[in-house]
Amino acid sequence: MTHAVRNDDYEDVVRTSFAKQGLMRHLGAEVTEVEPGAVTIEVPFAPELTQQHGLFHGGVTTSIADTACGYSALTLMPAGSKVVSVEFKINLFAPARGERLVARGQVVRSGRTITVCQGEVFAWIADGEQQCATMVATMMRVEAPTG
Amino acid sequence: MTHAVRNDDYEDVVRTSFAKQGLMRHLGAEVTEVEPGAVTIEVPFAPELTQQHGLFHGGVTTSIADTACGYSALTLMPAGSKVVSVEFKINLFAPARGERLVARGQVVRSGRTITVCQGEVFAWIADGEQQCATMVATMMRVEAPTG
Amino acid sequence: MTHAVRNDDYEDVVRTSFAKQGLMRHLGAEVTEVEPGAVTIEVPFAPELTQQHGLFHGGVTTSIADTACGYSALTLMPAGSKVVSVEFKINLFAPARGERLVARGQVVRSGRTITVCQGEVFAWIADGEQQCATMVATMMRVEAPTG
Amino acid sequence: MTHAVRNDDYEDVVRTSFAKQGLMRHLGAEVTEVEPGAVTIEVPFAPELTQQHGLFHGGVTTSIADTACGYSALTLMPAGSKVVSVEFKINLFAPARGERLVARGQVVRSGRTITVCQGEVFAWIADGEQQCATMVATMMRVEAPTG
Repeated sequence: MTHAVRNDDYEDVVRTSFAKQGLMRHLGAEVTEVEPGAVTIEVPFAPELTQQHGLFHGGVTTSIADTACGYSALTLMPAGSKVVSVEFKINLFAPARGERLVARGQVVRSGRTITVCQGEVFAWIADGEQQCATMVATMMRVEAPTG
Repeated sequence: MTHAVRNDDYEDVVRTSFAKQGLMRHLGAEVTEVEPGAVTIEVPFAPELTQQHGLFHGGVTTSIADTACGYSALTLMPAGSKVVSVEFKINLFAPARGERLVARGQVVRSGRTITVCQGEVFAWIADGEQQCATMVATMMRVEAPTG
Repeated sequence: MTHAVRNDDYEDVVRTSFAKQGLMRHLGAEVTEVEPGAVTIEVPFAPELTQQHGLFHGGVTTSIADTACGYSALTLMPAGSKVVSVEFKINLFAPARGERLVARGQVVRSGRTITVCQGEVFAWIADGEQQCATMVATMMRVEAPTG
Repeated sequence: MTHAVRNDDYEDVVRTSFAKQGLMRHLGAEVTEVEPGAVTIEVPFAPELTQQHGLFHGGVTTSIADTACGYSALTLMPAGSKVVSVEFKINLFAPARGERLVARGQVVRSGRTITVCQGEVFAWIADGEQQCATMVATMMRVEAPTG
């Protein structure tokens, strides 16, 4: 899918905003790709990110998928926009086991107010990657009061 | 709603499992209530939990809501059960601003394999609390291979 | 929950709009209650509404729940508003078996643009009713170009 | 994606079951494609299928998407299985306007008990088709007591 870019600084906008997210830093997450309509976020395994069985907690999977979706929406918005997660749904269909989680958010449909995104999360293990979750997210554009 | 309890140790089961969740400790979250079919989890504000505007990140809201829902389902399961989040959906409808977030998970429908839960998240601020999110979660019971 | 009414004709608005829905008539559905922030829609059983095992089809359950949620949102909107379903999620947790289905939509949170609603669907059988589904829906207000 | 087929009669199973759905006949819907892990259902426009503005009602979009998802899951199940919709979520992001709606359901992940499906709905108009909705559905396999 090709998307119209309305803000040439989209990558800067995403990276600057991401750097302000206390949670992403606390989880050890990084933005690894920013393209028009698509953002990838990765997080290496750490014992601080686990559920009771030692795998990545669903909350980590969801946090990076939501963030990747939100920023994928933001890449297509005009300068001065803020993006808000209205809602999302995630199916966690395989154990999030491995060295790192990779969440890729993509815009499915970009509207004036509402942007629909899809997120896919992959668990990277020694012998390859496995998709462990799929998200659909509804993002809303709001005018940022200050830059 | 009154629920049939099939494991008298339900509170222990929940608290022991919760204590093993690296993520919950990393976020500073605590279980504050465990009743049959209902679990409450709270997290005080910290800069490590924020999104780019300094409020609680949606990932924190979601992580504690998912965990509260999952454990509310587990309280009603027979001994030796494990609970897995199949999927959930969350609407984030007010800013998660305040001193603490409180997530309450409740069982809506408890089946043999599938349990449907509802989660509500409240932001506590100086002058009261405000609901900021609502979740519906599908939980699945699996037999735990080892205690 | 008490809701502020911004259009005293809210019941008329809902009933007039509902009467224009070809699908609701085709399914045999009726609006039975219209209050500020809450609308009830019912449909009696008919063989035209079934899935392969002779129960109400999930599509019927969903259609009346979506419609009840949308109109519950509309009751709280100013005159000249149109309501659009942005998205919804439904859990179908018990067989929709019985003489009639009753869907109740309620506003959980009413915002300027976005309204979050909850829908509950009950199957009425000889000896009582049973909840068979729960919905969460995101509705959006748009300005109607013509009355 | 290639899927393992465990029942060579999968197409028959789907078509026979579909023919028993009173609702699909009532809506005028047809199964147009059955492949392992993918089913397409179409419905031509009719005034009986509309919402208040004369477009396809979201309930129709949802009914055929849910049905296409459910049968896509069933194509991969062993003989004697029944498929039940546990839950689904749909985003309705463009007007469902046109001569026909086409819903394609596909299996994203097939597990022993739970199958996750994705549905896409397209509106066919004179000058092409436009995607108007995306669904994610959770399907469950249950043993059919009688064929």
